[in-house]
Amino acid sequence: MFESAELGHSIPDDLYKKELPALREALLDLQFDLAEAKAFPVLILIGGVDGAGKGETANLLNEWMDPRLIHTCAFGPATEDEAERPHMWRFWRELPPKGKIGIFFGSWYTAPILENLAGGKLRKKLDSHLSDIVRFERMLTDEGALIIKLWFHLSKKQQKNRIAELEANPKTRWRVTEQDKQHLKHYDEFRTLTGHILRETSTANAPWMVIEGFDPNYRSLTTGKYLLDIIRARLDSKAPPLRKAAAPALALKPVDDLNVLNTLDLSKSLDKDDYEDQLEEYQGKLNLLTRHEKFNQLSVIIASEGVDAAGKGGAIRRVTQALDARTYSIIPISAPSDEENAQPYLWRFWRQLPRRGRVTIFDRTWYGRVLVERVEGFCSTQDWMRAYAEINDFEEQLLNHDIVLVKFWLHIDQKEQLARFKARENTAFKRYKITDEDWRNREKWDDYQRAVCDMIDRTSTERAPWTLVESNDKKYARIKILKTIFEQLERKLEALK
Amino acid sequence: MFESAELGHSIPDDLYKKELPALREALLDLQFDLAEAKAFPVLILIGGVDGAGKGETANLLNEWMDPRLIHTCAFGPATEDEAERPHMWRFWRELPPKGKIGIFFGSWYTAPILENLAGGKLRKKLDSHLSDIVRFERMLTDEGALIIKLWFHLSKKQQKNRIAELEANPKTRWRVTEQDKQHLKHYDEFRTLTGHILRETSTANAPWMVIEGFDPNYRSLTTGKYLLDIIRARLDSKAPPLRKAAAPALALKPVDDLNVLNTLDLSKSLDKDDYEDQLEEYQGKLNLLTRHEKFNQLSVIIASEGVDAAGKGGAIRRVTQALDARTYSIIPISAPSDEENAQPYLWRFWRQLPRRGRVTIFDRTWYGRVLVERVEGFCSTQDWMRAYAEINDFEEQLLNHDIVLVKFWLHIDQKEQLARFKARENTAFKRYKITDEDWRNREKWDDYQRAVCDMIDRTSTERAPWTLVESNDKKYARIKILKTIFEQLERKLEALK
Repeated sequence: MFESAELGHSIPDDLYKKELPALREALLDLQFDLAEAKAFPVLILIGGVDGAGKGETANLLNEWMDPRLIHTCAFGPATEDEAERPHMWRFWRELPPKGKIGIFFGSWYTAPILENLAGGKLRKKLDSHLSDIVRFERMLTDEGALIIKLWFHLSKKQQKNRIAELEANPKTRWRVTEQDKQHLKHYDEFRTLTGHILRETSTANAPWMVIEGFDPNYRSLTTGKYLLDIIRARLDSKAPPLRKAAAPALALKPVDDLNVLNTLDLSKSLDKDDYEDQLEEYQGKLNLLTRHEKFNQLSVIIASEGVDAAGKGGAIRRVTQALDARTYSIIPISAPSDEENAQPYLWRFWRQLPRRGRVTIFDRTWYGRVLVERVEGFCSTQDWMRAYAEINDFEEQLLNHDIVLVKFWLHIDQKEQLARFKARENTAFKRYKITDEDWRNREKWDDYQRAVCDMIDRTSTERAPWTLVESNDKKYARIKILKTIFEQLERKLEALK
Repeated sequence: MFESAELGHSIPDDLYKKELPALREALLDLQFDLAEAKAFPVLILIGGVDGAGKGETANLLNEWMDPRLIHTCAFGPATEDEAERPHMWRFWRELPPKGKIGIFFGSWYTAPILENLAGGKLRKKLDSHLSDIVRFERMLTDEGALIIKLWFHLSKKQQKNRIAELEANPKTRWRVTEQDKQHLKHYDEFRTLTGHILRETSTANAPWMVIEGFDPNYRSLTTGKYLLDIIRARLDSKAPPLRKAAAPALALKPVDDLNVLNTLDLSKSLDKDDYEDQLEEYQGKLNLLTRHEKFNQLSVIIASEGVDAAGKGGAIRRVTQALDARTYSIIPISAPSDEENAQPYLWRFWRQLPRRGRVTIFDRTWYGRVLVERVEGFCSTQDWMRAYAEINDFEEQLLNHDIVLVKFWLHIDQKEQLARFKARENTAFKRYKITDEDWRNREKWDDYQRAVCDMIDRTSTERAPWTLVESNDKKYARIKILKTIFEQLERKLEALK
């Protein structure tokens, strides 16, 4: 991985000075074309060995280009707000929007490197971590981001010389820290580990580029030209190539017409007394759990989806009645804001993740991608087809961070829906609940059903299963939802003990 | 303040049950009209004595109304992210957008109450704190927010009875904490203090409403009806009344034609050698300060304004060259996003405040309100006239939080501007810097000059003075800016020692 970056590259000063003006002008031009097109974000990850010019390069890029269109982030130890969310949250909230350049120091590569120096994880565990990274970057590039990964390298001999030279000069001696010496001692180990990491995560869509860092002229010119070429090429290409490919519709049409929805027993119901007893029972039990001494060690996310008029709102209210208003938020998902539109699809959900001891209820969710966006053609087939895996990855991260994730699909049949639509139209204070869009969606009933079946098949995992809720009878549905949340939360609290 | 809330109000159950359905329906209706109109946000502040129904009321409102359109926030001790910003930052980031309802527990009233119980500040200091609050709330209501402040009260006798009753019952005894007993002991003091605070902060635009909290029926019905009346009245009024009033233009036209801009000596300049020496000197000095051991105890904000083509971008680049790219952000201010448009004017600046040890450079600033928005008529005369005081309050908060705030106005004359516009049009890689808008703005030269003079007069305070930068010579301007930042930062670092 590092062979070509240990050749002792260098560029004489006069050549450097001759090449620089044209390069800078071209980079500035590029940057404004990028900002004007607002077509995609550019994310530059910077890594490498000590003293190979990481910081210098970031500073130089800011000097050469217009720093107003660059945002450079350094990630140190997690702040309290960051530590209360899944690991990747801090990176999500710094992602550059379309048209801008973000430079990340200490990106998602810091953890696997630090954790695996000096022994660390089993290679198998490391590789699973790296494949998470590969999938994450793949998601970003599929969403249109241009990811440029730069690794600045020094050979062992160069590193030794660098430290010796700094130490020999009284003026620069202070710059050599104990850490530098420690790192030099572990140079070979570091080289082997990072070589492995770079190879494993160098993909067609987000390759690593290793740059020899010893000679500043060589390093700077190489970096500048590489950025210029790669960003310009992308700008001049008509469209992100990945979006174009056609993809087959997923769903098999079952020849016997059975599916997970039409086999639900929608006649399930509860009588009023039973309902009221159980409502009180489970609201009380759920409330008690939220005052459990370990409740502050976890967070809860409730993902609520369902057929129009299936009773999501009413069910959510029965859940929130059991909670203290100071502990929950409800996020109704409708059209994205313009800030959300300038980011990858999942960004708007990441920004709403609850801190510890809080409950966030999504009224419609990230599954919009494989439901309404698929059926209405708001995104390409490629986009919604890859969304299943992206969503599974997203939820996996939630679960790994001790977030209790409960997912509901509220189902009613077409006849019941019609009755409810009509009732809504006739009740003054429910009029807001029924719109022309609801009627239009109803006409696409079969398409939506197929999308739901695919969604359930492809995103119902062992750790984050879908709960299908028979909702023709609202009372039955509400109790099933309350009970499910209670049980999953109780199980998690016990596991924490 | 509390007299009418110590009368022993109560409502019998049957009357409560009779009134409730119509109230709930009207509240729901109201809420959807509010969401549909998206005309203003509603902010409900909840305070009061222990056990008077604060939490119960928030829960009840969420139960009665659609909880998806309400966001309830409780503010506990500041998190790390919050502690690194001015005190009010945490409230700014939870403000509800237009069309939604926010319920705040532990609002900006918590600090003055806690700090002044048991002795605390001098009354004079308290009153200055309260007048800050009054001005802050005035700004919010001027920006269109509807602020509803509810205080739930119990008389001393009711409080005693409540605690005695809870203690008498083995099932509820656990609910009485040591804190409750302590608070009861200090009841009179608390009543006097909060009475004073409520009176001082009960204004025409944001009055306190005190509600007796002992009888839940009375409390709930009173709260519900009050909210209904006041929100409905505002919704049905055609426009926020404050925006309508006409206001005189501010600037005196000086009869001798002298002003702070045309008396600047724009012939000031530096020769190349001098410039290069000083550039190196001050960039080096500034860099050293950012590595000062106390630098992590403060933050820096640089506010950059100036005539079009005065050289803001170039000057900012000379500053950032002295900084590590990992420590600064540049925020170019252009049109607000839709999320920003749904919030008070200053919200978009609050959200960008730097954490400790970081530098944020605003390229154009909150002064847009009294410059471009005034001249182009993007806001009403009332709006920009009140902005001077709002901006002074905002900056005061920054300074009180150990933020070094440096404000620049870069000035050139009309002739120099014309020359630069033409040069830009003729240079390929500068073409992006000159637009039709620049030429249009130039035609309004006199209006802009008048607005700038007013701005300088009204917002140049002792602690946050404007630095006027003679910029016909770019070299002179850049050095003056670097030197000013260096000096102000140095002074602050010394003051911290």
